[in-house]
Amino acid sequence: MKIVVDLLGSDRGAETIFRGVVETSKLLKDLSFVVVGPKSVIEKIEIDEDLEGRLEIIDTEEYILNTEEPTFAVRRKKDSSIVLAMKYLDKENADGLISFGSTGAVLVSGLLIVKRMENVERAALTITLPTNKDKMILLDIGANIECTSDILKQFAIMGNIYAKETLNKENPKIALLNIGSEDGKGTKILKETYSILENENINFVGNIESRDIFDGNIDVLVCDGFHGNILLKTIEGSVKFIMSNMKKSLMSSLSAKIGALLIKSPMRKLKKSLDYKEYGACPMLGLKKVVFKGHGSSDEKAVVSGIISMCDYINKDINSKIEKQIEKGEN
Amino acid sequence: MKIVVDLLGSDRGAETIFRGVVETSKLLKDLSFVVVGPKSVIEKIEIDEDLEGRLEIIDTEEYILNTEEPTFAVRRKKDSSIVLAMKYLDKENADGLISFGSTGAVLVSGLLIVKRMENVERAALTITLPTNKDKMILLDIGANIECTSDILKQFAIMGNIYAKETLNKENPKIALLNIGSEDGKGTKILKETYSILENENINFVGNIESRDIFDGNIDVLVCDGFHGNILLKTIEGSVKFIMSNMKKSLMSSLSAKIGALLIKSPMRKLKKSLDYKEYGACPMLGLKKVVFKGHGSSDEKAVVSGIISMCDYINKDINSKIEKQIEKGEN
Repeated sequence: MKIVVDLLGSDRGAETIFRGVVETSKLLKDLSFVVVGPKSVIEKIEIDEDLEGRLEIIDTEEYILNTEEPTFAVRRKKDSSIVLAMKYLDKENADGLISFGSTGAVLVSGLLIVKRMENVERAALTITLPTNKDKMILLDIGANIECTSDILKQFAIMGNIYAKETLNKENPKIALLNIGSEDGKGTKILKETYSILENENINFVGNIESRDIFDGNIDVLVCDGFHGNILLKTIEGSVKFIMSNMKKSLMSSLSAKIGALLIKSPMRKLKKSLDYKEYGACPMLGLKKVVFKGHGSSDEKAVVSGIISMCDYINKDINSKIEKQIEKGEN
Repeated sequence: MKIVVDLLGSDRGAETIFRGVVETSKLLKDLSFVVVGPKSVIEKIEIDEDLEGRLEIIDTEEYILNTEEPTFAVRRKKDSSIVLAMKYLDKENADGLISFGSTGAVLVSGLLIVKRMENVERAALTITLPTNKDKMILLDIGANIECTSDILKQFAIMGNIYAKETLNKENPKIALLNIGSEDGKGTKILKETYSILENENINFVGNIESRDIFDGNIDVLVCDGFHGNILLKTIEGSVKFIMSNMKKSLMSSLSAKIGALLIKSPMRKLKKSLDYKEYGACPMLGLKKVVFKGHGSSDEKAVVSGIISMCDYINKDINSKIEKQIEKGEN
């Protein structure tokens, strides 16, 4: 198996991502890497002879910033790491690509260079979230601001397969994000989508309100990219707000201060478990090739876990399964 | 001042709401009450002679459940407490109405019986949220699922006046909920709204992402009822999720257990401060008369604080100020 790794554009720089690659190479001995980034940084890091034979370097220092308008930047910055990486994935014999850089740039270059699967109307950005029971897959989290009911239907189908394969659920429970759990709630598009999903060959369990998503009673949460993005960023904001207020509360008395010291270690673990950025990388579903996006703040360990998730996805041939299922639906 | 209080439909029953009325009557000596609910319950509670002279009872046992479809229920249940209360507010000389029952029923009966102000396209449900600095007003939280840019503009104008008067801000900062802070982000309607608000005579500070709303840099957050509802319920779900995980974390070792005991009191306070249900009652903006909705789980204390908020709103004559401002905008 050969994968392409975009080293640039993450918060911690190319060195961290490359160190993650080096660590992964020790765990997965038959994996080859094409790393795209500055040779000068890569060559500073010592690597085993073993990895040398499995490593290809595409030298570039250019990359797309988070603050750049992605469509414009992808078209203009021909030598940016993500564009070179995507072109390699598209033309050469690679099995997948992972980037920790600008989400917009990964999305746009994926759509423009690798392109969507036949019959897939829109590609979706996914994320895996913790719940009180198992993990849950949320899609779309921002690729498609406005979606028709047909697009949402495809998200449900793609999410179903992805959840089946990676969450080990035989019949994943699929729900639609809405403002009430009853049938007939929400926008016109959501009402339409509800009736469509009821007749699909998936385990559609109906609407769910965002207050209930953490209960762990669903496996896949389907919504358009606007709602998914609002949801995700509200969770992020809430966690930050609660944690900062907790700090203040625990400074309110001497006994609370002592208590705070005693709970420091489990609280740190809790904070980590609530941070979805820690959940490695997630695929962009619906593209012709496997494209994973890891969080920009990923450290070495997160890079390793991201690459491993991608290899698992590739091994399970999830993209082909999605392609077949979508094709079936369209015929 | 005379206010109407709907005693029915809350989680804790008519007695709790009426006890809140009794407590308020001791604090506000020139306030008269019209309470709508079962006489049998009301008469069981002893009241001062002083209140007797200021109390009118509309006897009914019927009310609208949270689970009922509000439009249907309001039309059918002519003797339900909220319908009788709204009719009193509309026809008699009352200054405001507060209910702790079904939000949908309050909204629908308000729209059908009291009606919208002239020139107001839609009435909005508001809520006041805590932030790291001051409080913030969010509207709409669920009355209007889909909104045009003109409706969102009116929400901004109404929110501006409400914030000016109740948050004591001379020039409240108004922001639009979006998935990016830059101009040009989001749906077509949000882009339109952005350009309209830029030219309004308000302190429009642009788009804000939901992850940043708790920083306390804005006073009024404008969005349609679908997004507001998702936002609010995600906060609720996140608080619940974090708190339940924290409990688990704090049982993980003996020292953590001891720590947990020591922080019990500040943590309880924190939980309370994060619970927006504790923030008393909020107005429905854009109706011809003052209508407040308190949370269904309100206890006696929350009832008192809700009524006091409403009296403050009435005293400041906020409805007239909104009416004038909206009229000005339309001419």
